[in-house]
Amino acid sequence: MSKLVLDISMSLDGYVAGPHPTLEEPLGRGGEQLHEWAFALAAWREAHGRSGGETNVDSDVVEEHLQAIGATIMGRRMFSGGSGPWEDDPNADAWWGDDPPFHHPVFVLTHHERAPVAKQGGTTFTFVTDGIETALAHAQDAAGGADVVIGGGAHVAQQYLRAGLVDEVQLHVAPVLLGAGTRLFEAGPEGEVELLRVVESPSGVTHLKYRVAR
Amino acid sequence: MSKLVLDISMSLDGYVAGPHPTLEEPLGRGGEQLHEWAFALAAWREAHGRSGGETNVDSDVVEEHLQAIGATIMGRRMFSGGSGPWEDDPNADAWWGDDPPFHHPVFVLTHHERAPVAKQGGTTFTFVTDGIETALAHAQDAAGGADVVIGGGAHVAQQYLRAGLVDEVQLHVAPVLLGAGTRLFEAGPEGEVELLRVVESPSGVTHLKYRVAR
Repeated sequence: MSKLVLDISMSLDGYVAGPHPTLEEPLGRGGEQLHEWAFALAAWREAHGRSGGETNVDSDVVEEHLQAIGATIMGRRMFSGGSGPWEDDPNADAWWGDDPPFHHPVFVLTHHERAPVAKQGGTTFTFVTDGIETALAHAQDAAGGADVVIGGGAHVAQQYLRAGLVDEVQLHVAPVLLGAGTRLFEAGPEGEVELLRVVESPSGVTHLKYRVAR
Repeated sequence: MSKLVLDISMSLDGYVAGPHPTLEEPLGRGGEQLHEWAFALAAWREAHGRSGGETNVDSDVVEEHLQAIGATIMGRRMFSGGSGPWEDDPNADAWWGDDPPFHHPVFVLTHHERAPVAKQGGTTFTFVTDGIETALAHAQDAAGGADVVIGGGAHVAQQYLRAGLVDEVQLHVAPVLLGAGTRLFEAGPEGEVELLRVVESPSGVTHLKYRVAR
């Protein structure tokens, strides 16, 4: 069966977003620093329809992850780009543009039913209103044996972690202390994890991959 | 001048002690798991007057650290082993025994003046009542150019981090999620750090060393 994978950039002090997110700074104060290592990469740029960029151990890690994905699960706010209520807004999916960077089925956790949205390049958004386990089941069906990835945000990642549904966690530990913000690990879960791999990068990011006991 | 170094074991979710510390479990529930990798090592056992133990990449990291230490700073509770009020108890230093594992000058942060205590094997305990900067100055004098190390506990480490006095942080990231407890990074500091080294160990611990901007 498809693995459920959480792949996320985190500050050394454990934050996946900075404090006080706004429309201008959706990742909170300093939050962009968590992702600087990725924005420069060819693998990230290609997935987002851009050319150029760097190729290094960081891009190997990103490419490996991107190629293994069969489906993505995300929260409602991640889907709508952090903007306000969108359930009645037919343009709420505009955030991701006509050719979103996923190129595979995406399942959006929400409390409001909505017809699926098919975009260019193989990305479809399907809306799931009956909880994280149902979303996971749909995503695993759609992934055809490939990985199911938690696309965020932090609250969705925390729900899956606490429910013991995550198989693998890859943390990209960025060389920055944010001092405040949204932590990935907040009130659980607990238990041993198994270190699968460490990749040190000249960019200062450390890629830590763990198997999580289910 | 001597570097101020923080060298500490931390869970993947950022805790340096588990919840609900007691006399029986001074590191809190599950806290022992943070240090299991070290207890098995020859380098740790030798420093604590025991023989045997393993030699591997973990022990290389520990030996390198131990050999670089010229002086240690610790908090009052660390000195007295987490027990209650000790200022009037002439046996309060009994926790560390007659031959403590330091073998160098130790400076204890406290609010109560007390005469220095000299132990066997080169360990002296000196009590500092006028704050963390004074303790650091004394320790740097005593260290003779070698590293000054923050011996703990977490509260003392946090004070030095927030004051911007720490030069280097080495985190031993243990493959465990404690879910609750005492976090190392709580309410600051913030800023970029520079990754100096990553050591991956078969024990599942990852040793991350950073230079901290002062």
